This record gives sequence, structure tokens and C-alpha cells, in this order.
Amino acid sequence: MSPQEKARRVGETMFAVDTASKDTMGMELLACEPGRAVLRMEVRPLHLNGHQICHGGFIFTLADSTFAFACNSHNRVTVAAGCSIEFLRPAHAGDVLTCEGLEQTLSGRHGIYDMKVSNQRGEVVAMFRGKSATIAGTVFPEEGRP
Amino acid sequence: MSPQEKARRVGETMFAVDTASKDTMGMELLACEPGRAVLRMEVRPLHLNGHQICHGGFIFTLADSTFAFACNSHNRVTVAAGCSIEFLRPAHAGDVLTCEGLEQTLSGRHGIYDMKVSNQRGEVVAMFRGKSATIAGTVFPEEGRP
Amino acid sequence: MSPQEKARRVGETMFAVDTASKDTMGMELLACEPGRAVLRMEVRPLHLNGHQICHGGFIFTLADSTFAFACNSHNRVTVAAGCSIEFLRPAHAGDVLTCEGLEQTLSGRHGIYDMKVSNQRGEVVAMFRGKSATIAGTVFPEEGRP
Amino acid sequence: MSPQEKARRVGETMFAVDTASKDTMGMELLACEPGRAVLRMEVRPLHLNGHQICHGGFIFTLADSTFAFACNSHNRVTVAAGCSIEFLRPAHAGDVLTCEGLEQTLSGRHGIYDMKVSNQRGEVVAMFRGKSATIAGTVFPEEGRP
Repeated sequence: MSPQEKARRVGETMFAVDTASKDTMGMELLACEPGRAVLRMEVRPLHLNGHQICHGGFIFTLADSTFAFACNSHNRVTVAAGCSIEFLRPAHAGDVLTCEGLEQTLSGRHGIYDMKVSNQRGEVVAMFRGKSATIAGTVFPEEGRP
Repeated sequence: MSPQEKARRVGETMFAVDTASKDTMGMELLACEPGRAVLRMEVRPLHLNGHQICHGGFIFTLADSTFAFACNSHNRVTVAAGCSIEFLRPAHAGDVLTCEGLEQTLSGRHGIYDMKVSNQRGEVVAMFRGKSATIAGTVFPEEGRP
Repeated sequence: MSPQEKARRVGETMFAVDTASKDTMGMELLACEPGRAVLRMEVRPLHLNGHQICHGGFIFTLADSTFAFACNSHNRVTVAAGCSIEFLRPAHAGDVLTCEGLEQTLSGRHGIYDMKVSNQRGEVVAMFRGKSATIAGTVFPEEGRP
Repeated sequence: MSPQEKARRVGETMFAVDTASKDTMGMELLACEPGRAVLRMEVRPLHLNGHQICHGGFIFTLADSTFAFACNSHNRVTVAAGCSIEFLRPAHAGDVLTCEGLEQTLSGRHGIYDMKVSNQRGEVVAMFRGKSATIAGTVFPEEGRP
């Protein structure tokens, strides 16, 4: 199985059971490739806080989900070991947020991934950086792998 | 109006319109006092990710909401200028998460607030630190204040 | 050996060989107790950047050293797994910076420590939060410990 | 004056008076271009902590200095509004650390800059992200600018 095919299957497997991202937040999985993932979420009334803008926590959630897909894309179970986020501009109802996550470095068990959340005008809404740690196991069963 | 009364009213005013925290996430506002806020959220199926644990983004959201109440509690409109979070243990369906936010320092326009998310056994689930910046305006109209 | 005595000896052992903190930066170790450490550094001309204030990196360094003493104070070798810092006010030549580090939570291998850097007027200059991970070994040989 | 020339002069002006970076730490300024800076530092005995590796605070300091050059390179006085760092591998005596800082986004007063510290083998030692805020003034006097 090619790395591309493996990543695609990781994405399908994880997304199918991710109630929080899919059902509660309304995210879509646009791509899961080796070291890369893209998710999209339209800002709807359910996402709005008292200032009538998207709750920062939900922008974090979009980026954190994207991080999970990107860092698990090699079919090694990988967890977050730390993260940071910078918020750059607000998102309003009707905005369509796209988050692209990219592997910056992966060495042994530890990797760094950068997630960028942009709106439909291509403006950067937030930047999230995650540090990952690979643990035992695979996302889906793979021949010759425990 | 005493600082306590002012903070209580800030809490009520903000919470009433915070769809994201109240309706989508199911948070309750337990306390809003000068420089302090407490929110609670039970982990329900809607919060679960593919690992069947509470999505880290929703733990962040709980802490971020608590931060907003704590840093606005003096009835000066205050926004987040930065934040960081450390996740310490997972939360499962049925867990009741309580987040207490406390002002650590406030000098001029800038403050630091620490939020601690604990479960029903008193175990620390996450620690969130927020840096705040006060801008113009009040949360609710106050005599003699613009 | 009591926890207090153990921590004191950890402090002496580590500080004796810490050229960077002691000789290059001019720090003093004021206390190393179980889950707590205090270091002090006077801001001297060597610490100043082009704005004639203490380089933020050296304030970070003071806090990071304090973190190392606090999290190793139980005589289990412990390393930093992540950190964040917020700078609150500048430090000038002649200022005496004291950093107190306190264990906030320690559960299994992972802990959270908060470091607060204050000047001689008790004003908070920076707040640093560190996440620690205990690995194998002891700082100084202890009977019955590998 | 071209943006390139302006950035070069910002670099010279700032570096000339930066005792901390130049004299205390031994950094060299390799490049200061619009939205980009490169600094280098050899790890010497003065940088070593008790584990005989470069103090993490000095790696932070290298990245923080690079951040300052990159975000001031447009000759608008710009300060750090927040930062985070991830340490990926240790640096030893004799290692030559090069830090490249790149502007990721700049919109109005706020920008995001990514600094990557690598050793002489091209291995990533640390990644630092800085959020900047432009304030009043110029680094060197510029015609038609206050």
C-alpha cells in the first residue's frame, strides 16, 4: 500500500468515528495525505459566542483536529504532546474556514506540525503549532505491523 | 455597585448571549467574581472524538470561556492577547469538568489568568494560561463610564 | 534522608556544574526545596540588548533554570517537555530579578511548574510555565535507587 | 531606499548596540532582509548547563534575537507580543547553530514569524514562533517618517 493510500485510509478510519469534529462542529475532511491534512468548517450560529463571532475554542478545535489527521497520516498512532495557537482575526457567521496542516519535521518519535486556518478570502484567521509523539499501534491494521 | 455585584452582572450579561458555551457545549456558569470565574461542563457523547475521549478542543473551549468571564469581571471589555494550554489527562463520557479561572496579575491594560480544569475526582485535566488586554468599553452600561 | 535534605543536595549538585546559569548569567541559587526553587539574577550591562533593557532570552533563561531545579528537586532526573512564557514588563540594568518556581501538579511522570520572575519592587516581569517529564536516573546517587 | 537596503541598515543599526546577542552570546548577524533574518552562534563552554549541553535559554535567546531582526526589518519599530518554542534535540559544545526567521503573515500591526534553529548537520534543534506588534517610530531615521 502506498503512503498516499495509507494516509487516505487513516483519514477515513479516524473521521468515521469522530463525532466531535464531524457531527458537533460540522467539519469536513478534504484531504489526508502523508504529513498533510485539510479540514473545512463553515461558521454557523452554533459556533458564535456573546460577541457574535466564532468562539476561539472552536477555531482551536478545527486546528487540533487537522493536527490529529496530519500526524497520524503515516498510520502510526500519534498523540499531541503540546500545542500553541495565535489568533489573528475573528471569524463571523457564514465564513468558511479551511485549515491546512503540514508536517514541518519528524524525527524518531517526535514531530512538529503547523496548521493554518484561513477564511474564504484567504485571510489567515489563526496559526496553530503542534508537537507530536508517536506511541505504539496503528490506526488501521497493517500487515507486518503490531 | 460593589465589585462583587458588578462581576455577577457581567457574568449574567455575557452568558445570556453565549450560544457556543451555553447551548452548543452545555456549559454552566457557576461563579463570576472579581478576577475569578468557575464554569462546569459534563462530557457527553457530542464531545467525544474518535478515541472516545473528550476532544481536546472542547477542553480548551471550556477554559477559554472561563478566561473570558474572569478577565471581563471588572466590567472593562477585555480580550485575549495570547494563551497556552497543557493537557494532563483525558476526560471520558460522564466526567464532570469544572474549570476555575483566577487572575494572577493585572497591571494597566494587561493581565495574566490561570485556568485549571479538574474532573469530579479533583484530578487536573488541563491547565490554561491566558494573557489579557483591556480595550475600550464596558460589558454592561455603568454610570460615569463610557 | 528527608525530602528537604534531598532537594537541597540536588540543588548543590546541579548548580555546581551549571556554567551557563552561574558563570555566564550570574545567577544565584537561593533555595531548592521539594517542588520549589528560587534563583536570583541582577541585570548587568552584559544582559542588555539594543533597547538597553534585559534581553528577553535571559529572562527566559532565568525562569528555565529555576524550572530545572524545581522539577529535579525530588532527585528523579526530569526534563522539560514544553514551556511557555509571558513577558509583562521590561527589566533594566541594576534591577534584581528573583524567580520563584512552584510545582502545581505532579502525577506519574508528568508535572506542571509555574515560575514567576519579579523585580526588586515586587513587580511581575514574566511568568513561565513548564511541563516536565521524569526519565530514568537520579541527580545524585541515592541508596536503593538505580 | 529599497526594502532590501532598508532591512540591511536596520540590521546594522540594531546589531551594533546589541551587547547581549553580540558580545555575551557571541552571535553573528548573517542576513537581515525584508521579513527575514539569519543569525548564527557557535555553542561554546560558556553556553553549557550542568548536563554539558547548550542551555535551552540560550537557544531561545538566539531565536528571540532573530525574531527581533526579522520583525523590525521594515524599519517600523516592532515588539514581541508573544512567543512559543519547541525544543527538538540538544546542542553540544562545538555545534554551530543557525537560526533563520521568516515572516509568515503581516497584517496591519500584527505579524507572525517562524524561527528555525538548525545545527551544522541541518538537523532542527528548535522551532520558535513569535507574534509581533508594530508600535510608533522607526529603527533608523527615514525621510518622511516620524
